[in-house]
Amino acid sequence: MIEPARPRQPLRLYDVPLDNGCTLSPFVWRVRYALAHKGLDFESEPVAFTGIRSILGGKYHQVPVLEDNGEVITDSWQIALYLDRTYPDRAPLFRTHGEMAWARFFDRWFFRDVVPHMYRSYVLDNYNFARPEDRDYLRESRERTFLGGQRLEEVVSGREKRLPTIRNSLEPLRVMLAETPWLGGLRPNYVDFCGLSVFLWAAAINTMPPLEKGDMLFDWLNRGFDLYGGVGRDERLRPLAVGVPTACPPEQRLTA
Amino acid sequence: MIEPARPRQPLRLYDVPLDNGCTLSPFVWRVRYALAHKGLDFESEPVAFTGIRSILGGKYHQVPVLEDNGEVITDSWQIALYLDRTYPDRAPLFRTHGEMAWARFFDRWFFRDVVPHMYRSYVLDNYNFARPEDRDYLRESRERTFLGGQRLEEVVSGREKRLPTIRNSLEPLRVMLAETPWLGGLRPNYVDFCGLSVFLWAAAINTMPPLEKGDMLFDWLNRGFDLYGGVGRDERLRPLAVGVPTACPPEQRLTA
Repeated sequence: MIEPARPRQPLRLYDVPLDNGCTLSPFVWRVRYALAHKGLDFESEPVAFTGIRSILGGKYHQVPVLEDNGEVITDSWQIALYLDRTYPDRAPLFRTHGEMAWARFFDRWFFRDVVPHMYRSYVLDNYNFARPEDRDYLRESRERTFLGGQRLEEVVSGREKRLPTIRNSLEPLRVMLAETPWLGGLRPNYVDFCGLSVFLWAAAINTMPPLEKGDMLFDWLNRGFDLYGGVGRDERLRPLAVGVPTACPPEQRLTA
Repeated sequence: MIEPARPRQPLRLYDVPLDNGCTLSPFVWRVRYALAHKGLDFESEPVAFTGIRSILGGKYHQVPVLEDNGEVITDSWQIALYLDRTYPDRAPLFRTHGEMAWARFFDRWFFRDVVPHMYRSYVLDNYNFARPEDRDYLRESRERTFLGGQRLEEVVSGREKRLPTIRNSLEPLRVMLAETPWLGGLRPNYVDFCGLSVFLWAAAINTMPPLEKGDMLFDWLNRGFDLYGGVGRDERLRPLAVGVPTACPPEQRLTA
């Protein structure tokens, strides 16, 4: 066993956690997966939404921000590319440029055709689970930028009737996962982390689970949440279907 | 230069051509690209729609069907996997299992969110360009199976008003190709062939071009049609935008 030449100190990942300390941002979740996949230790550095501009010289305005031996990288996609470039001896997030294209397409599809339906159901939950000091900013910025001036309460009104829309929008993902164990092929790659991170975002805040208990997506979700010692098994996470705890460790699950 | 050990004879690719002899099926087009990519010679074997059941012992009911030294493979996806498996010394269609997943997802997205809009615009053109002996079968089978009993003429009625729908549906493809030269990454792979083959299907039959002249997709389309000596430069192909000939060889094009 030869130690790598580079003196390793833990990387630092800035995060805007919920009031219970749990990670919310799907872009932070995917970086957590990327770091775990590459076997890189990190320290999570909590920061308030309105505090992001006061860290690291005020050059950044959203998380994730990763600090690595003096280098600072922001934007989850740039961080993923940085990690593969800087740690080529570790497991790759992308084995080929074709896999990079796949990740980009998948993520854009997800954020165009699936996430908006979830977002409009969970944006008030997000407000309620946020740290008190983040709430005013969260309400004001979300209502103004993403919600066209509508109030959070109006946006989520009637959300139970829109559950079928969320579930139907996931059908292309089910079709894929019926024929491949991972979106990355025989092994997980960054495409899986992009997908899992959105479900972890929903699991962090939802008070109305998006999925049905028998959804075949749970096979992939459970294997994904178990990866790297259980990155997605945070005990503060909420169920994604009624009666299916997310946080429950593998040995306590009844499903195969 | 060492000759491969396997005695090579041209592969045979069964096709249902149009009356002008041009390939129509997007699934045959992608196999033509796959064979060219791997540098494998083939002979095209024309067959009528209703004649497919009389070839090769009557076991097949659609093209493409590929015959290779006594092996018969049908279904373009199975053919692609067969070619990579059988000719591993040739350029790969997929470099990783992740790239296979990418091809499957892209193709399903395309056939779910884009192709139906094109199909409903070009199904009558398809009928008119088909060989006379294929037309009755084509009308009857399409009206019954894909068009819910509507007549071809009804389906295409008002198609000029639906051009924006076709063009808008292609936006995710434009977003991708703004940041990668090929869907396969730095080099084309089977994902590109899946995409190009749908445009070649449209180019084979359309009497109302789907795209606008300035569409940025032409950068990728032109590079794609030029591949392997110009697989997509068949002189019988029709323009995909008014004033942009598809068949025109590269040296005669005015675009960069």
